[in-house]
Amino acid sequence: MTNTALNKLVIIGVGLIGGSFALALREAGLVKHIVGIGRSKINMQRAIDQGVIDEIADDTASAMKDANALLLAMPVGQTTSILAQIAPHLEPETLITDAGSTKQDVISAARIYIKKNLKNFVPAHPIAGAEQSGVSAAQTNLFQKKHLILTPLAETSDDAIKRVTDLWEGCGAQVSQMQADEHDKILAATSHLPHILAFTLMNHLCINTGNNPDNLLRFAGSGFRDFTRIASSSPEMWRDICIANREALILQIDSYKNELVCLQKILENGDAQALKKSFTQARSIRQSWLKNKI
Amino acid sequence: MTNTALNKLVIIGVGLIGGSFALALREAGLVKHIVGIGRSKINMQRAIDQGVIDEIADDTASAMKDANALLLAMPVGQTTSILAQIAPHLEPETLITDAGSTKQDVISAARIYIKKNLKNFVPAHPIAGAEQSGVSAAQTNLFQKKHLILTPLAETSDDAIKRVTDLWEGCGAQVSQMQADEHDKILAATSHLPHILAFTLMNHLCINTGNNPDNLLRFAGSGFRDFTRIASSSPEMWRDICIANREALILQIDSYKNELVCLQKILENGDAQALKKSFTQARSIRQSWLKNKI
Repeated sequence: MTNTALNKLVIIGVGLIGGSFALALREAGLVKHIVGIGRSKINMQRAIDQGVIDEIADDTASAMKDANALLLAMPVGQTTSILAQIAPHLEPETLITDAGSTKQDVISAARIYIKKNLKNFVPAHPIAGAEQSGVSAAQTNLFQKKHLILTPLAETSDDAIKRVTDLWEGCGAQVSQMQADEHDKILAATSHLPHILAFTLMNHLCINTGNNPDNLLRFAGSGFRDFTRIASSSPEMWRDICIANREALILQIDSYKNELVCLQKILENGDAQALKKSFTQARSIRQSWLKNKI
Repeated sequence: MTNTALNKLVIIGVGLIGGSFALALREAGLVKHIVGIGRSKINMQRAIDQGVIDEIADDTASAMKDANALLLAMPVGQTTSILAQIAPHLEPETLITDAGSTKQDVISAARIYIKKNLKNFVPAHPIAGAEQSGVSAAQTNLFQKKHLILTPLAETSDDAIKRVTDLWEGCGAQVSQMQADEHDKILAATSHLPHILAFTLMNHLCINTGNNPDNLLRFAGSGFRDFTRIASSSPEMWRDICIANREALILQIDSYKNELVCLQKILENGDAQALKKSFTQARSIRQSWLKNKI
């Protein structure tokens, strides 16, 4: 255990992300006692049984008492009601971070419900998902060598930013900072849009086959498997993300559709040269990304 | 070496597929001597150095002499010119199969150029790709437990179908049969469309950022990586496939766009319930596919 270990950490939503945060901080010796709050009794009991948390909260007031830090890791759609619920019990010194895939909506809710605590609020987004959910999917090394984006508010203190950075770095993440609106635009393009495209492909195949896609899918290969992996993600989590970031996402879908129509016209014209040029450009952007990514 | 081992096999296009076919048949003791034909001298020399083939063909006439079997494994766009080139040298008893991702176009070309050999022509499509290409990517077990679809012609003899089935099963594949037009429709939906969608996403991100996607892509995670894996596929191969199957593919793109517009409207209406329903359906189709697939 390090000298700076948290005496008490509260995690709301002990699923893939919340559970992995607990496991990673424990492994790093950065926390002494972890209290979990969650909706599903089965999931919370599993979190205890697996040693992810030490205690299931009886009530919010006692959970938040003397808490050094709080992680919000429930689906983003619950932010408002959760913040409203904890606000009366939130102590001035409790450090607050979250793991939401969208940041402007979380910040808006924080400005309403926990406005006295903004200096200790450091919004965060670990770019480390999986299509599995629940505490059973949690793993100690989920954040290892993964990007984590902080989107601090003007009110957030430098000390809070430093302490939250230390926690996420303690989990193995590579921490960056940007503005919340920039974050939401970037993630709309590289994460939320691909999820929409993958969900849409599954529904398209279903409708296209009179709701009987089995014969079609029987011959789907590994390319299809990987392309659609994110379509197995939690519907509830992705409903909340897409609703929260829908303005940026709708712009992305519009622009993507235009690009798709361009390619369709190339096909209609049978323009083999333009098609190869388009595929070559796409491939080279991806290869260059692969070469540079952490 | 088995009793039924081929004395001489000719492979045109010794890349990922042709090379893996060679390695798998050799491992199974089903071939004695393999002659390779290919455009790239470097790739062909590598195929010799890696023991994938025994001989680089000097000329088509001597390569085809006494060949028991021929595999066409070059990009499908070259089918016409290759068939025209080999036709004069094709012996009546040589068994012919191919590995093209589209089947109607290959069959049309065969009906023109090798019409005397149709009884020995068994079109095939191994559903076993990878985004890598070239003989360096070839692997002995590429076809293990993978689907392989045969689309025999009315003229194809039962004996030829049996012998080609034995070869592909010898490579570990699970062999099915269907009509060529049915094959092309199914693959347009489960393979060609996803490739178009992945290529389009890369180009969309590039255009969307004024041709400078680096800052955007810096924070792309594992979901993005898997979703776009097929966008690293060979542009030449996919140009040929998309051109060859463009009628079916254009219909797929049209129908996919409609589905995307529906989802966009749900987002515009902020209809969280309909969004969750749509995502839940998509997820459940995929989970059911994962459970049943080989």
